[in-house]
This record gives sequence, structure tokens and C-alpha cells, in this order.
Amino acid sequence: MNTLIVYAHPEPRSFNAALREVAVDTLHGMGHAVVVSDLYAMGFAPVVGRADFLTQHNPERFNVSLEQRHAVAHGGLAPDIARELARLQAADLVILQFPLWWFGLPAILKGWIDRVFVSGVSYGRSTVFENGKFRGKRAMVCVTTGGPAQSFGPDALNGDILDLLMPLHRGVLGFTGMTVLPPFTCFHVPYEGDAARRQMLQAYRSRLGELDRLTPLPMPRTDQYPGLLVHGQRPCAQ
Amino acid sequence: MNTLIVYAHPEPRSFNAALREVAVDTLHGMGHAVVVSDLYAMGFAPVVGRADFLTQHNPERFNVSLEQRHAVAHGGLAPDIARELARLQAADLVILQFPLWWFGLPAILKGWIDRVFVSGVSYGRSTVFENGKFRGKRAMVCVTTGGPAQSFGPDALNGDILDLLMPLHRGVLGFTGMTVLPPFTCFHVPYEGDAARRQMLQAYRSRLGELDRLTPLPMPRTDQYPGLLVHGQRPCAQ
Repeated sequence: MNTLIVYAHPEPRSFNAALREVAVDTLHGMGHAVVVSDLYAMGFAPVVGRADFLTQHNPERFNVSLEQRHAVAHGGLAPDIARELARLQAADLVILQFPLWWFGLPAILKGWIDRVFVSGVSYGRSTVFENGKFRGKRAMVCVTTGGPAQSFGPDALNGDILDLLMPLHRGVLGFTGMTVLPPFTCFHVPYEGDAARRQMLQAYRSRLGELDRLTPLPMPRTDQYPGLLVHGQRPCAQ
Repeated sequence: MNTLIVYAHPEPRSFNAALREVAVDTLHGMGHAVVVSDLYAMGFAPVVGRADFLTQHNPERFNVSLEQRHAVAHGGLAPDIARELARLQAADLVILQFPLWWFGLPAILKGWIDRVFVSGVSYGRSTVFENGKFRGKRAMVCVTTGGPAQSFGPDALNGDILDLLMPLHRGVLGFTGMTVLPPFTCFHVPYEGDAARRQMLQAYRSRLGELDRLTPLPMPRTDQYPGLLVHGQRPCAQ
């Protein structure tokens, strides 16, 4: 089993770093091969643009999807994208490890998705959800929050963590066919002391040991939407 | 009235650019002052890090919020953040203009939020939602999608656009106290021809003329959650 951990935190001494290390150690102990993409340490560039490609499909008008498809056909993905995409393709389990910033992904991680989930490789016109290119892979979010647990929930001030993560779970991971495991969430982290932090790390160890017994999040199926044009025929620039 | 348009698209000839120009022209015609932050044209750097600050609060351990508060107190925000923050503070209306990428914000725009919505200026421990620092400002999303309208909705394949935008609407704009207007959404843009595009641009003109008559999105109020510790006392690195 190959695991890819995509880790997005600027501080090497952070609790997020400790969670990452727990995952590396635990998964190694389970016999997994583990690769970590430490986006901050790599200086990963998160902005989609012409520099994503060695090739050029249309010099007049830049359309991300069309340039991606052209680059895939002609070996023209920039080296950093090609490397991350190869890691993603080789992974049986993908863990996204990040602090919740403004109720979403840190920009560096959103940009990893924007650039690495290449059109034609991670999805196609009718190859999404149950027909997705990445079916067979499992994905899990490991996220920390500043807000306390009671501030998250369907009727709580910050909304439910599953609703906040829905665009990621469903729109990225499920969309590409991955089996999405329930997120592992550590609440109120900046305000917790060592004892509580140790408990959270131990809970993460336990969680990683029971991945096979978790019930995945429900996802839509395209065959529930017959006649829906998932993607049209003639894309040009949005 | 001052309007800030934060615009995130890499292609100057894109439909997003046309929407931006419609907004500039229409709002000028209504007597607004309009500032555009064209993030791609500016080469905006979206990754939170030490370079956000001229000051340094803790050289041993980097905590974004603590560095932000320290920098605000000592005039230590990096010039690009200080400029964008000043634009945000001066705005009565904030329009976020972007294509939906992976069911969310392009990384360059998420990073604008991550870096510019500075702790202590855009929010404080108990100054969120109805007590938010940015109350009195209005905000509106103008977003384009690749998927057709019928693929979005509460029971549709891609989910409802309001659910996809919830982390932004509620977790960023509403959280900081802004009045959040319903989004203006252009579906299926890459597959539409000139006539449909002209209709969408005209609809956007009409929408901009009726901002005062729109019913804002509902937001939670902190006084509905008495006793909730919105932010704790002793933050350290997540």
C-alpha cells in the first residue's frame, strides 16, 4: 500500500507537523510505503498559469483545461506538476493534512489541487464519481481548527465540519472517484495544552489503524442523473 | 460608494474579464468609485508565511494569527498586504470575481483572503458576524462555472452553489460582519456562444443595478450562541 500525505503548514514545530509524523510512523508500522509532499518545505507554487506547461496549445487565449489536455498528450506538464501527479497516481491512500484557514484549505494546498488534478488524467467528460479516474484510491482529510468542537455542528456558529469540507470531499476527492473516508478533526488546537494534544495524536494513531473499518462518506453517482451533460463539447475560456 | 473588485483569472480575454468590465462600467455609471485588484496581473503572492511581515513576533515558532496581530500593532504588514487591506477597509461593496475551480476559489484568491483578512483587523475574539469588524460593508460573489445550471442544485450532481460557496459566504464574508448578497452565477460558460454570453453580461448589468433591492443571505448571530468561546485566550501554533 502506498500512501501520499500532502501536508500544508508553514511551521515545522506545529501540531500539524506532529500529526504528519504520527501518520508516517503509524503507516510505516502497518507496512505502507509513505511519501510526504511537504508543500511549504518544497516551496510549492500554487498559482495556475502558463508556467504549468512546457507546451502551448493556444498562445492567444489561455484555457487551463485545454492546455492541460494538450500538455498531457505531448509530455508538456511542468516538472513539479508531473512529479506530484505521479505521486497521486501511485497512491492507494491520499491524506490531506492542513489547518482550517478561513473555513477552507490554505491557498498552497488549494493550488496543489488546482495544478495537479489535471484534466484528462484526474477526470474526463464522463469519468467522474463512480466512473472516476481515481476510483480504487482512498482519501482522508486530517484537519485542525482554532474553534472549539462545540462551535462546529449542523446548528452551531461555524456550521458543520462536513458542510465546510463538502467542496473538497465531494467536489475534488469524490468527483475523481476516490473513496472518501470521514475526516479526522482536531478542534481548538491553538488553545490546548500538551496533555490534550497527546490525546489527539493518540486518537489519530487509533484512527489510522482502523481505516478499513470506517464507513466512507456517501457520494452521488452519475447514473442517478441520466442525460446530464457533465462536461460539454466545446470548451473555451471562462 | 467605494467598490473593490477582487478579480482572479489568468486570461485577460476571458469571460470573467468581460464580467469585471461590466461591473466597472456599470458601477462607474452609478457614481461608484471602483478599484480592481487584478490578482494575476499584480502577480499576487498567495502563500502565507514569514514574508507577510516586516516584523517578527516569535522567531522560534511561526503562528500566523500572532504574527499578524504583532505586525498590526507595529506597522509590520508587508506592503502588498497593507495595500490590499487598505482597499478592503475603504470598500463599501466588495465583489469577488472568479471561475469556480475544483468547486472553490482559485488558489490565488484563497491566498488573498488568507493573507489580507488579518487577525485583529478583520476579526477579533468576539467581533464576528453581527459584531464583525466589517459590518456595514456589502459583499457579492460573481462566479462562473463549467457545469451546466441543471448540474447544480440541492439534489443535483454537483450540489447546490450556495452550499459550495458556504465556506466563503459564511466563513469569510459573513464571519467578518459583511452583509452578503446572493451570488451572481454564470453556468456552463466554456460551452456557451456569443449570444448566451451577451445575455449573461446583460443580466449582470441588471443585477448590479438592483443591489439595494436584494435580500441578503441569512447569517448566524453570535448572540444565538451564548457562552460559546469564539476564540480562546492562549493561541499557539496549530
